[in-house]
Amino acid sequence: MYDKLHEECGVFGIISPKPVQTVPLTATALLALQHRGQESAGIATFVDGTLKCKKGMGLVSEIFSHDYLNFVANTKIAVGHVRYSTTGSCNIENAQPIETVHSKVSLALAHNGNLTNSAQIRRELVQSGMVMHTSNDTEILNILIVRNIIKTNDLEKAIIDAMNFVEGAFSIVIATKDKLIAVRDRNGFRPLCIGKLGESVVFASESCALDALGAEFVRDVKPSELVSCDIKGNMTSYMLDRASQSGLCSFEFIYFARPDSVIDGISVYDARVKMGRALYRQKPTEADYVCGVPDSGLQAAMGYSLESGIPMAPAFVKNKYVGRSFILPDQLSRELAVNTKLNPIKATVEGKRIILIDDSIVRSTTSTRIIKMLRRAGAKEVCASVRRRLSTNVISASTSTAEKISLQTITM
Amino acid sequence: MYDKLHEECGVFGIISPKPVQTVPLTATALLALQHRGQESAGIATFVDGTLKCKKGMGLVSEIFSHDYLNFVANTKIAVGHVRYSTTGSCNIENAQPIETVHSKVSLALAHNGNLTNSAQIRRELVQSGMVMHTSNDTEILNILIVRNIIKTNDLEKAIIDAMNFVEGAFSIVIATKDKLIAVRDRNGFRPLCIGKLGESVVFASESCALDALGAEFVRDVKPSELVSCDIKGNMTSYMLDRASQSGLCSFEFIYFARPDSVIDGISVYDARVKMGRALYRQKPTEADYVCGVPDSGLQAAMGYSLESGIPMAPAFVKNKYVGRSFILPDQLSRELAVNTKLNPIKATVEGKRIILIDDSIVRSTTSTRIIKMLRRAGAKEVCASVRRRLSTNVISASTSTAEKISLQTITM
Amino acid sequence: MYDKLHEECGVFGIISPKPVQTVPLTATALLALQHRGQESAGIATFVDGTLKCKKGMGLVSEIFSHDYLNFVANTKIAVGHVRYSTTGSCNIENAQPIETVHSKVSLALAHNGNLTNSAQIRRELVQSGMVMHTSNDTEILNILIVRNIIKTNDLEKAIIDAMNFVEGAFSIVIATKDKLIAVRDRNGFRPLCIGKLGESVVFASESCALDALGAEFVRDVKPSELVSCDIKGNMTSYMLDRASQSGLCSFEFIYFARPDSVIDGISVYDARVKMGRALYRQKPTEADYVCGVPDSGLQAAMGYSLESGIPMAPAFVKNKYVGRSFILPDQLSRELAVNTKLNPIKATVEGKRIILIDDSIVRSTTSTRIIKMLRRAGAKEVCASVRRRLSTNVISASTSTAEKISLQTITM
Amino acid sequence: MYDKLHEECGVFGIISPKPVQTVPLTATALLALQHRGQESAGIATFVDGTLKCKKGMGLVSEIFSHDYLNFVANTKIAVGHVRYSTTGSCNIENAQPIETVHSKVSLALAHNGNLTNSAQIRRELVQSGMVMHTSNDTEILNILIVRNIIKTNDLEKAIIDAMNFVEGAFSIVIATKDKLIAVRDRNGFRPLCIGKLGESVVFASESCALDALGAEFVRDVKPSELVSCDIKGNMTSYMLDRASQSGLCSFEFIYFARPDSVIDGISVYDARVKMGRALYRQKPTEADYVCGVPDSGLQAAMGYSLESGIPMAPAFVKNKYVGRSFILPDQLSRELAVNTKLNPIKATVEGKRIILIDDSIVRSTTSTRIIKMLRRAGAKEVCASVRRRLSTNVISASTSTAEKISLQTITM
Repeated sequence: MYDKLHEECGVFGIISPKPVQTVPLTATALLALQHRGQESAGIATFVDGTLKCKKGMGLVSEIFSHDYLNFVANTKIAVGHVRYSTTGSCNIENAQPIETVHSKVSLALAHNGNLTNSAQIRRELVQSGMVMHTSNDTEILNILIVRNIIKTNDLEKAIIDAMNFVEGAFSIVIATKDKLIAVRDRNGFRPLCIGKLGESVVFASESCALDALGAEFVRDVKPSELVSCDIKGNMTSYMLDRASQSGLCSFEFIYFARPDSVIDGISVYDARVKMGRALYRQKPTEADYVCGVPDSGLQAAMGYSLESGIPMAPAFVKNKYVGRSFILPDQLSRELAVNTKLNPIKATVEGKRIILIDDSIVRSTTSTRIIKMLRRAGAKEVCASVRRRLSTNVISASTSTAEKISLQTITM
Repeated sequence: MYDKLHEECGVFGIISPKPVQTVPLTATALLALQHRGQESAGIATFVDGTLKCKKGMGLVSEIFSHDYLNFVANTKIAVGHVRYSTTGSCNIENAQPIETVHSKVSLALAHNGNLTNSAQIRRELVQSGMVMHTSNDTEILNILIVRNIIKTNDLEKAIIDAMNFVEGAFSIVIATKDKLIAVRDRNGFRPLCIGKLGESVVFASESCALDALGAEFVRDVKPSELVSCDIKGNMTSYMLDRASQSGLCSFEFIYFARPDSVIDGISVYDARVKMGRALYRQKPTEADYVCGVPDSGLQAAMGYSLESGIPMAPAFVKNKYVGRSFILPDQLSRELAVNTKLNPIKATVEGKRIILIDDSIVRSTTSTRIIKMLRRAGAKEVCASVRRRLSTNVISASTSTAEKISLQTITM
Repeated sequence: MYDKLHEECGVFGIISPKPVQTVPLTATALLALQHRGQESAGIATFVDGTLKCKKGMGLVSEIFSHDYLNFVANTKIAVGHVRYSTTGSCNIENAQPIETVHSKVSLALAHNGNLTNSAQIRRELVQSGMVMHTSNDTEILNILIVRNIIKTNDLEKAIIDAMNFVEGAFSIVIATKDKLIAVRDRNGFRPLCIGKLGESVVFASESCALDALGAEFVRDVKPSELVSCDIKGNMTSYMLDRASQSGLCSFEFIYFARPDSVIDGISVYDARVKMGRALYRQKPTEADYVCGVPDSGLQAAMGYSLESGIPMAPAFVKNKYVGRSFILPDQLSRELAVNTKLNPIKATVEGKRIILIDDSIVRSTTSTRIIKMLRRAGAKEVCASVRRRLSTNVISASTSTAEKISLQTITM
Repeated sequence: MYDKLHEECGVFGIISPKPVQTVPLTATALLALQHRGQESAGIATFVDGTLKCKKGMGLVSEIFSHDYLNFVANTKIAVGHVRYSTTGSCNIENAQPIETVHSKVSLALAHNGNLTNSAQIRRELVQSGMVMHTSNDTEILNILIVRNIIKTNDLEKAIIDAMNFVEGAFSIVIATKDKLIAVRDRNGFRPLCIGKLGESVVFASESCALDALGAEFVRDVKPSELVSCDIKGNMTSYMLDRASQSGLCSFEFIYFARPDSVIDGISVYDARVKMGRALYRQKPTEADYVCGVPDSGLQAAMGYSLESGIPMAPAFVKNKYVGRSFILPDQLSRELAVNTKLNPIKATVEGKRIILIDDSIVRSTTSTRIIKMLRRAGAKEVCASVRRRLSTNVISASTSTAEKISLQTITM
């Protein structure tokens, strides 16, 4: 369950011609984007021209309680972020949005992505006398932008220059006291879309956040595009100077995004069903039931079932109350970790041949454990088909022959 | 989403011949029973002969953190409880287990159920000079039992006499310093089962808690039965004096229990699939897809699909991060409440005729809102089939004819 | 340390012609009044005409964090409360301000005091069909006021009629969406004063809350007076119909109030110094040092020292980190409870004759323990002079003759 | 109020021949040492031979609740720490005790002090391939010790060699599964003492922690001494190889330590009174009252009063509820920061000439603010005498001549 890539984050922004409940609306949108990151969450807004930011470790619902949202000032602009931790840096300093308060401009920046030349830029900035407060890439963006604004006094140009300077993947929302800006890298590696909610304009990582607000989907931000929206809701589009090369990260469709989102014109749900259909066509297998590993394996399983005609059945109950916070003492932990999260439904699997569809695999340990769990629950035979990390492979593991796991590569 | 009966609770107990991690094991079991109650949780144990109890408002994972469980003393006995609030009494005093410390006996009692003659007994107890600390039924049980022990010095007899005195539904686990006792009312209205974990004996509301611990299922506690287990693991069975009349609460099968549990010999999953099949047979309808309302509607939907041959498809994504704690400010709340919890998958429903299966209904408001949500997402026609509260009816709501909802009663 | 009367609470209100940081200002004032109650705190305000209230168990600083106050809307009116628990009812429902939302008027009421005919009024209200949500007196006031407003449409008259109907002691601040009202009972039993902060008018239990805000002291609210302040800062004074009989609760001067407050024209600090002087004149005793029991005993000790010429010296260090929340396991608790809170300074007391001044006494247990503590630390002789509860006596305890404590009554 | 040195921490350890409540006892001791650090606290113990550690940000009473301590296993050994943050590194990774689990030895180390050659050692360790988990000095000690144990298999020798290798100031308590070891650097810069509590041996930063437990003071750990105590309570003394040069940090006596502690044979209270006396002799000034800035200025004020015959009077009330956690929004914060913490007692200072004694000064900003506060409260003249940082000076600030502050150096 832990052998997956976790590089996603969720970003959201809203700008309105008159003061509205931008902070509660942003919290609601972040809740809809919570699957993209559960480590920390934050919202920045401008109260009477002053940048205010609340960030915390944990879930949106823990950080932005009813008590909190109930008293909050109505404002015209807000930007929010949910974060998935990358390597080790699990602390509040790395929570976003990152704020920069400068006499020329105050801004809050929410960033989904990874810069590839950040170490080098950081070194140059430090050598030029900059003091860095965090260990994350996002602060570098803030500094580059503000430094450019000091020179040029042009917000959009300053951001475009900064974005042309960095390499890597990013979808970004930036709030100043009177503008909301969205930028997407030249490959469009991470999703970002535009919506309308009454007179307000919103930007969000996924369309499911628009649905949560009852906002209307307008269009996706294009790769290499910067969209600047002023306080009256007028949007202007600019292009970064380098052309697009590849495209959206395939893991967005495989398991990052929510199935009810539509990204770059493609329904995530449909994409997963198609993957499941392809999986069957590439590796047709006979069985009694097709079963998906919750949650994102379920849609590919449906595709496999539709293509093969083998009925789909639930093999597991996932305990939704097992969160980050419940960690058993060490010894118990090792024994019970999988049990507490997933439990097989014996009534489904007993005596049956099961095709198990998972969304992806990094190491095979979790899959092996899940397969054993099904065997213990009485499954006669288990054939696991999953997408292998990076190399786009699929493991087919027949544990009927004990511990031997044969790997078979197929194109998905 | 809120128009359901919420009367369940979860109970668990463990007794071991030597000190083991009874408290972390109980926390793990309660986590598996968390679906039966999210208001409060508690665990009582005997540390060096002294009754200690930790209770809190909120989820098991919030109250029993890793930090907490890590230092906890090994003990031979523990009893735990998760609670769903009934009317208004949402406070820490009503959290269970309820402890009674008396020179003759100290005990902790965890109770799932409702007494029907508690008001009368409470009145008599108060008139006889008793001081009551809580407003809940469970304290009455503690007082009756302790009063009987003072008279008779016989724990099992004291409990049997108390249980014969009260009316209503209950499944109870009681811990003293050297015994663990399980009792189930004469109708067996609430579930309760027995398991073995190594040398330990455990009692749990549902078998899914045994699975979470890797414990072996032994059998259900029978209606009217009291099972007393001593510190060596010897179990003795006693019977209450009145015979069984009805049977298990049907809502356990309909939506209280987890689908991976087996109660009184029946798989909850199988029962729900059968209900779905029966629903189709009683009211066959043509459609493109059968869709279940998550979570417990999904299994009945599968049954309907299997019986009808109409393919099952996911109509909704349920946001698992929307918990009790996230409540929007009033005005937003009314508008966005349903959106944040459920979002239709347009790719599934657009232009389709949908049969919607929910597990039950108390008022029709939520169903009506969900049906509207599907219509807005583009469903051509929606036919909702749900189990109606108490009278075991089913609503079939065709909103194709605007706001008029016709109710049709069928036997399920 | 626990044998004192704890009946105080703290109230505060602010009204401003334009939106200002009423909520953070109220939190600051409550912090200055925190000594009057540490069980719960709350603030109510009107955001865009809607009554919003945040209450919690614990200290002001726990409930109103920087994170919270930072985003809060600017408003024109707020009312706050800190609460000391009286008998058993330590739960969030009893936290104040108590809000009532009615189509005719919405109001929030913060109350310091005890009604003596509340049981009777409650009975009458319930019999007349009212539903009560809490077990506290304050809700009764809300109901009486709102019922009167429905009849008369006159806010001030409605409050006066309600106040003339109840018996007992109270200082109250009430906020509606455009008025702030302060009332003090006919005896002026609890303090209440008026201040100006720029264009805002404030009401507070003690003048130390005005100092904390940098507000100017205007005057005390008079016994039997109702002061109504409108949104422009115009104050109108009304009188309740019965005349004053007694006066301010003497415990305010003895230990409730902060020594830097001035109540009804008298400095609390000066009053305590005078009590200490009187104590010496009534019972002159020879000794090496006069020592006060922290915190409020210190000022009377200073008076005793000034009158007697005996030097004052610190006998104890009080651990300011021992709060409500630190409770040791039972057995340790009994042994270590006093030690962790107070520790004698051996360098002061060893071989010395000590006059110990405490502010009051209910039971003699704590005094006896403190005296023993000084003896163990090497004091040659300890003579404790304290104000005895209700009967205004003073205990003089000479433990040089072992455990025998002779009580001598003197008029203070 | 913030312009002081904050380099202290508090350490404590306990070892007992049989399992006792070492964790609650350690929590109690840490509470008594809380003045030495409020940023984080932690306790490590060995449960059935396994090292367990609970650490958290905040106060002892927040981290070790009754609920927590109530269930905790009885153990034979525990070590605890309270931490004051030094530069910027305010996060949980730097909380102590620092644990090292190695196949040869598991240990937990609590450290009060600063190493002066840590950067160099860290560089060498990293170059030799070590992975460091924290940015603090203490982890370096753990690594050096464990590396020595791997070579020599001799715990005491390993620690002595490590301590001879590092430069700087330290008082350390180390727990292994069967030994408790205390070490103090060759200058004895930070305090450390030994006590007996029944059959248990305890080590503590200050004797006030022994008083809190009712433990008997045995003696101070000597500079350069390592005291090793085995599970039976046998203590063995070893000496580090370099001789003592200077002595205890004078700030311990000036304001770090609690006045009820006795360090290296000197009462902290007495030391402060003597400083106050010396201050008067070096700079005799006429005035109506001598006033101390709470808390540690009060004892020097008493000395000044005793030497001069000028009566001591309280000038301020300090709000003990203003903790780290209460931070007002930015703008209010600047205006109200001092007011909320300290309030002058007008009754004392109005029209009076005041000698104000503070314990120390780093920058003069706080003193200047406090002096202005007294002037606003009506003081005719204020003469502030404080100990200046590092250079051991005293500022005498007469603000009667407006903003000009004359600094006069005297030897204290």
